[in-house]
Amino acid sequence: MAAAAFSCSVSFPFRYSRNGNRYHGRVDIKINASSSTRLHPLNEITGAREGSSPLATTTENLHVTEEQIRQRIPTKKQLVDPYRQCLIIERGVGYRQMVVVRSYEVGPYKTVTLESLLNLFQETALSHVWMSGLLSNGFGATHGMMRNSLIWVVSRMHVQVDHYPIWGEVLEFDTLVGASGKNGMRRDWLVRSQATGITYARATSNWVMMNEKMRRLSKMPDEVRDEISPWFIEKQAITEDVPEKIVKLDDSAKYINSDLKPRRSDLDMNHHVNNVKYVRWMLETIPDKFLDSHQLSGMVLEYRRECGSSDRVESLCQPDEDEILTNGVEQSLLKNMVLTSGIVEGNGYLGPLETTMHGYTHLLQTKGKTRKEEIVRGRTRWRKKYSLTST
Amino acid sequence: MAAAAFSCSVSFPFRYSRNGNRYHGRVDIKINASSSTRLHPLNEITGAREGSSPLATTTENLHVTEEQIRQRIPTKKQLVDPYRQCLIIERGVGYRQMVVVRSYEVGPYKTVTLESLLNLFQETALSHVWMSGLLSNGFGATHGMMRNSLIWVVSRMHVQVDHYPIWGEVLEFDTLVGASGKNGMRRDWLVRSQATGITYARATSNWVMMNEKMRRLSKMPDEVRDEISPWFIEKQAITEDVPEKIVKLDDSAKYINSDLKPRRSDLDMNHHVNNVKYVRWMLETIPDKFLDSHQLSGMVLEYRRECGSSDRVESLCQPDEDEILTNGVEQSLLKNMVLTSGIVEGNGYLGPLETTMHGYTHLLQTKGKTRKEEIVRGRTRWRKKYSLTST
Repeated sequence: MAAAAFSCSVSFPFRYSRNGNRYHGRVDIKINASSSTRLHPLNEITGAREGSSPLATTTENLHVTEEQIRQRIPTKKQLVDPYRQCLIIERGVGYRQMVVVRSYEVGPYKTVTLESLLNLFQETALSHVWMSGLLSNGFGATHGMMRNSLIWVVSRMHVQVDHYPIWGEVLEFDTLVGASGKNGMRRDWLVRSQATGITYARATSNWVMMNEKMRRLSKMPDEVRDEISPWFIEKQAITEDVPEKIVKLDDSAKYINSDLKPRRSDLDMNHHVNNVKYVRWMLETIPDKFLDSHQLSGMVLEYRRECGSSDRVESLCQPDEDEILTNGVEQSLLKNMVLTSGIVEGNGYLGPLETTMHGYTHLLQTKGKTRKEEIVRGRTRWRKKYSLTST
Repeated sequence: MAAAAFSCSVSFPFRYSRNGNRYHGRVDIKINASSSTRLHPLNEITGAREGSSPLATTTENLHVTEEQIRQRIPTKKQLVDPYRQCLIIERGVGYRQMVVVRSYEVGPYKTVTLESLLNLFQETALSHVWMSGLLSNGFGATHGMMRNSLIWVVSRMHVQVDHYPIWGEVLEFDTLVGASGKNGMRRDWLVRSQATGITYARATSNWVMMNEKMRRLSKMPDEVRDEISPWFIEKQAITEDVPEKIVKLDDSAKYINSDLKPRRSDLDMNHHVNNVKYVRWMLETIPDKFLDSHQLSGMVLEYRRECGSSDRVESLCQPDEDEILTNGVEQSLLKNMVLTSGIVEGNGYLGPLETTMHGYTHLLQTKGKTRKEEIVRGRTRWRKKYSLTST
């Protein structure tokens, strides 16, 4: 069998920072397909099973081994993973991943949907844990969390989108974690254009632990703190002096959608409705006419309660009374949000940022017969669409 | 400014075939961040504009240039793209991409959802066109198609899933195109496990051109044929002797869901409901009890008509009468489908394939006041779930 003749070499730039300065380097990739080894899948699989004949294993053992072979979750910290196109940054504790915006992650105007952005936040967070060597078999849970039947649940999410990435654009997602109170964890993200280095979006979130069986919040056990605290750093993507208080809407809200129920595809690996799906329900309650001409620039969500697969859900929203911004300073309830980097950094090349902002308050609640229970309270802030996204 | 000291080298295997034999090679990646150049985003952008002062450009020109810089759609054929982790195979005409299964692409049992699989088919197809240098600004349309206001629409899709990939698994998606009649194109896919080389799924599809303004099917203009026909090869992922005829259901169908309407997030870059969304509607009409215990193994869809954003849609489905399979030979209407590779290749390590199959017939139609119009006819085939996916 002749050796094949295919070899190709390419390189692409990679950014990183050190001592507060930003540098960019280069990743060299050589694709060199010169081996002539043929593939023997079954041997490869069975050969990887420790001390057991492939025929003698029980179905149970076979499946556990098979899943491990297929997933290849690292048991030790990894510095780089070519499949995920990622590397560890920030002196060994942060995570950076290159992401190409896919065709189904954008809407009709080729810009990334908010849901896709939140999905990519989730994905990079989990890949961060994956690379840490701490990931057990659960949905981002560490080995210590698994031993204690604990899962992560998000309690708060704050997202700012200065510019929406477009189809085919290459992005850098950075994420890192820090302490949040005694029993929680903060996770931040920063999304940049790979081509220009300009910041497109930033986010911060807070996470607590829940007992998977009791469905109750839990303290962070010492063994879990010992696992994750070495990864904590102080650096934050969004600085908030005083977190904004979100008022609770009631039945007098201007827009109400009472006809929501989780679908099969809304359930995640923790077997409950994924928090990203809530955002879809929230936004779909805003009138189409507003959504057609506006773009979300910021969002704060406070998660109060899980939504189960059998819950019926009601989405309420209420637009703020008209607000006027003067000189880029927002005279609204959202004053604690930092200004968009486009204004701050003066690099308004992506089109002039509109100075008129609109705000909405949101509530998702279960629609029980006797009483309604809060799932999420939210605040969104909107700007007029750029001309780029309306062509 | 001191040069930084980060350098790392990894490699991963890559498969390809030549003269009908399968080989596997190796991709070497070196991450070498040694440059100390600082980033000047604005200069970088303005420097890339040809012959125009950044301040003198009109808003219109600025945006076109900006989108080009951000997307970087190649104008010449590329053999490899590190961001997409892909390369051109099959003597220069096929496309292969490595894909890591993301956390939000799987359902509660960690297996990839059918919708995610179809999304990845779309994504790799578009990336194939991207790499060809033929992609214009549209949704997979070539330059010649854009000049003739033509878009691609799918007329038929046939998918077989032998094994469902799981979260974190690395997959190889191969796709290639061929002629389909005088005015159409066939596109095939093959999905393999990167770790074992075992085939997980295969698909074939047929595409025709539609005039974007008239919303009518069009002949393939010569200039478009000249663009794409050099990419055509005969190789097929699924061999069908006689395509199965799908009967049209009527109001006597056992399960009917009349309450469907497209959502904002269902619209794609062609501003109509993406064909992948139809599948969700089809499957959600099947009873939960059946979906809980079965896994889709095959699907044939015939697309008849576009679904617009204002259409109301009705989904009908009808289970086959009980069928019994003997010795892996299916005694059903689905006899034209090839047997799953797990049986054919004898590598049943992923769990024994159930020999009892169930079939469903599907219909999606618009729910007009006067008459109903067909959107899609479909056939699905199901097997009992593996124990791997029910843990």
